[in-house]
Amino acid sequence: MQNAPKHLTAWAPESDTAWETHITATLRHYSVPPATPSPDRFRSLGLVFFNPSLRTRTSMEVAAARLGAHTSTIVPGSGVWGMEWRDNQVMDQDAAEHIQEAIGVLSRYYDAIGVRLFASGTDYAEDRDDARMKRILEAATVPIINLESAFYHPCQALADAATLHTHFGGKVKGRKFVLSWAWHPKALPMAVPNSALLMATRLGMDVTVARPEGFDLDPDLMKTARSYAARHGRQVKECDDLHAATAGADVIYAKSWGGRLRYADPDAELVLRNQYQSWRISTTHLGKASFMHCLPVRRGVVVDDDVLDSPQAIHLLQAEFRLYAQMAILERVWNLAK
Amino acid sequence: MQNAPKHLTAWAPESDTAWETHITATLRHYSVPPATPSPDRFRSLGLVFFNPSLRTRTSMEVAAARLGAHTSTIVPGSGVWGMEWRDNQVMDQDAAEHIQEAIGVLSRYYDAIGVRLFASGTDYAEDRDDARMKRILEAATVPIINLESAFYHPCQALADAATLHTHFGGKVKGRKFVLSWAWHPKALPMAVPNSALLMATRLGMDVTVARPEGFDLDPDLMKTARSYAARHGRQVKECDDLHAATAGADVIYAKSWGGRLRYADPDAELVLRNQYQSWRISTTHLGKASFMHCLPVRRGVVVDDDVLDSPQAIHLLQAEFRLYAQMAILERVWNLAK
Amino acid sequence: MQNAPKHLTAWAPESDTAWETHITATLRHYSVPPATPSPDRFRSLGLVFFNPSLRTRTSMEVAAARLGAHTSTIVPGSGVWGMEWRDNQVMDQDAAEHIQEAIGVLSRYYDAIGVRLFASGTDYAEDRDDARMKRILEAATVPIINLESAFYHPCQALADAATLHTHFGGKVKGRKFVLSWAWHPKALPMAVPNSALLMATRLGMDVTVARPEGFDLDPDLMKTARSYAARHGRQVKECDDLHAATAGADVIYAKSWGGRLRYADPDAELVLRNQYQSWRISTTHLGKASFMHCLPVRRGVVVDDDVLDSPQAIHLLQAEFRLYAQMAILERVWNLAK
Repeated sequence: MQNAPKHLTAWAPESDTAWETHITATLRHYSVPPATPSPDRFRSLGLVFFNPSLRTRTSMEVAAARLGAHTSTIVPGSGVWGMEWRDNQVMDQDAAEHIQEAIGVLSRYYDAIGVRLFASGTDYAEDRDDARMKRILEAATVPIINLESAFYHPCQALADAATLHTHFGGKVKGRKFVLSWAWHPKALPMAVPNSALLMATRLGMDVTVARPEGFDLDPDLMKTARSYAARHGRQVKECDDLHAATAGADVIYAKSWGGRLRYADPDAELVLRNQYQSWRISTTHLGKASFMHCLPVRRGVVVDDDVLDSPQAIHLLQAEFRLYAQMAILERVWNLAK
Repeated sequence: MQNAPKHLTAWAPESDTAWETHITATLRHYSVPPATPSPDRFRSLGLVFFNPSLRTRTSMEVAAARLGAHTSTIVPGSGVWGMEWRDNQVMDQDAAEHIQEAIGVLSRYYDAIGVRLFASGTDYAEDRDDARMKRILEAATVPIINLESAFYHPCQALADAATLHTHFGGKVKGRKFVLSWAWHPKALPMAVPNSALLMATRLGMDVTVARPEGFDLDPDLMKTARSYAARHGRQVKECDDLHAATAGADVIYAKSWGGRLRYADPDAELVLRNQYQSWRISTTHLGKASFMHCLPVRRGVVVDDDVLDSPQAIHLLQAEFRLYAQMAILERVWNLAK
Repeated sequence: MQNAPKHLTAWAPESDTAWETHITATLRHYSVPPATPSPDRFRSLGLVFFNPSLRTRTSMEVAAARLGAHTSTIVPGSGVWGMEWRDNQVMDQDAAEHIQEAIGVLSRYYDAIGVRLFASGTDYAEDRDDARMKRILEAATVPIINLESAFYHPCQALADAATLHTHFGGKVKGRKFVLSWAWHPKALPMAVPNSALLMATRLGMDVTVARPEGFDLDPDLMKTARSYAARHGRQVKECDDLHAATAGADVIYAKSWGGRLRYADPDAELVLRNQYQSWRISTTHLGKASFMHCLPVRRGVVVDDDVLDSPQAIHLLQAEFRLYAQMAILERVWNLAK
């Protein structure tokens, strides 16, 4: 496994790779029935979940299996040693193993390692920089696949892009995409909205971010999104009125996230957030739009039942595309595509 | 995976299917060594365990692997989001995901989903009706395999039937089958005795249910069992004297279950149950009978060590048959049988 | 699966088997790229972890997968019934299943069972005798593979032996091997140092055990190690001065373990152990030696960062060899070697 490429994934937003190629590969997996696994070479995939998962873990296990690869799923803290992240420590407390050794060892067994590692929620600079995921990259000698880091969720974004392509028969450009905040009892991470915003602007959609004051996304990320939009002659709108924002939408992509204020003053963030408890997608916002959500979704909190149960909701198709997107990613990481 | 059949399993007691065909298929898996997996089409099986399991999980994993299928095992609450079961809720409490979405998503990844979901022990109407398992069926778009629900354990029953066939050289009809209650420190579910009773009456055995007053099984289930027995010109006996019941038995099938009183008054059920602390299978009951138990079994509580350690105990053969029975079920669900 | 061989592993230190053959097989797996799995017969491996694991579990899963075998990983107490170990008990407490049935059942599903079962730390006679592992052997009807028992860690020892062979180009005999105790906040088990000592003496190395007074290894084990050394005309040295012991070493193998005093008086053991808090491998001990550790390792406690991060540290190679060693073991257990 020496000299394996070492990257978050070959198609991460930061890289300058063939986005179109990946969408095409993803769509192929959707339309072509899975063949009998017949690997020309044995592959094994390690999946490390520092945080809970239903879709990501199961779709990744099936994606690997469909490509003939073996998977191990590892949950640190559950039958596995506790881990130390900081360098130059005297490890005389709870953590029995350093991330340097843990990832170093797994790199010897697996041909790629998927890692889920949510935002700390306490250190914005660290989260903004995906510092702990980068520490893992340092320790790894095989490709690391981002299964949702502090700041990005690229597997979700690729699945969403391919879902939009399928749903709109390939005609995605110029359609109105509303990324809407929603109220939630917890201050959730920003990885999904960040990646959704980059995805939609990259596809040349007409993007509006609907969120209350105090819940704007990271300024540098917004800047990147605007640069993607500019390539298509577009701007990214921001709006703190949900009705105005969703008028005429082709897609409403709902997702809650915590305000950045939570890093400095969590109590104030909670008070602020709870002022917008009625910010929830209902049929009055929906119009002719398709409804998207990455799941899990809280019914009656983020979205009304009658939106989610309507034929305009395509959240299960999104979830299904996770499988095909991740097959495309694994093919790329392992050079399996023909 | 569109238009897949949707049922608890093709051979559930409620359905009118070829019971004999399944037993034959099960026996074939027992006698023919497993071939190299060579699936003509990739299959993946999701296993969702809302309750603990040793045999069911491991035998199902091996059964799928022997048929060349991939398996993921999912334990809600352990690295997976907590789930909401009730409809029309404002999900602002602990549960982050509704069963509607969870099962809907898994239906997109797996070719069948096995579900273990024990009785609530608090709502008899819901448990009697397998209401939560039916809610899962509503949400699913692929076959659901019952790995023990509130009221039935069909995988166990098929394994038990095939065990009896093998053990008695195919001559099961007319043999005396005693389903015996036993004392246990907890009020256990009724799924196993329910399915065992339906199984034995369906096979035309001479069935006696031995249990103290207050521990009779569900009246409607007894009615169904009597209708099965009547097809063979038999009746189902009930008896509250363990010695009288077991006299001349060919099989003693022991299993503890809580009285139905526990739904209305758990404290009274406990007092009643503890009056029968000595209701335990010993060599004085065994005679020439074979001893069966679904496992796990508490030694010295449900049965004496010298019964369980005698050659008359066939509980491990029962456990082994879980593997072959579930291979038969998967073959049927996936139309793999040749 | 009747009449399968029944042993801790075919190459356990107690047996008189071809140690060289195993090292050779291990080295072959290291040098030959894994072929497409093409099993001539389906195999399934059950892995039972009574204690945490990262390397052992993942390397065993990949080892089995590379040989075309299926694996289930079982963690008692996590989604699995609690277990009773003692015989002749009235099981009316927490444990719902006896180890006799649990292992008996798993023997019906799997072609071999790997078991990790650490020392109790409370009963020296039981730990010394690997009494609970032997109870598992009694209940099993398929081969049991020791994934670290109370007293031995043979998979680690084989991996270590093959690592030494590779690292020293086959010229291991006569090299100075220092097995060094280290301070640790917990009284750890002795399985790894026990197996490392037997391994190094068996290879004909010049072995020194460096440890403070009160941390000597088991007298009978030392006797066995001396008998192995004697075959090569060597003695096993013991030394309570870390600097003197490590002078001129080719290999320093660090590992903490609790003093045997902990069985009689844990508080006194802690006081004694904490007197040696500075017993830690640093560059002043290293010289030209290679540094080995079985992992997980506590940085700054057992060894300094600059030792572990130096090119002389071969702990990740050791970890990698776990994979190849366990492939060799599975081949032997299943007669797969060609």
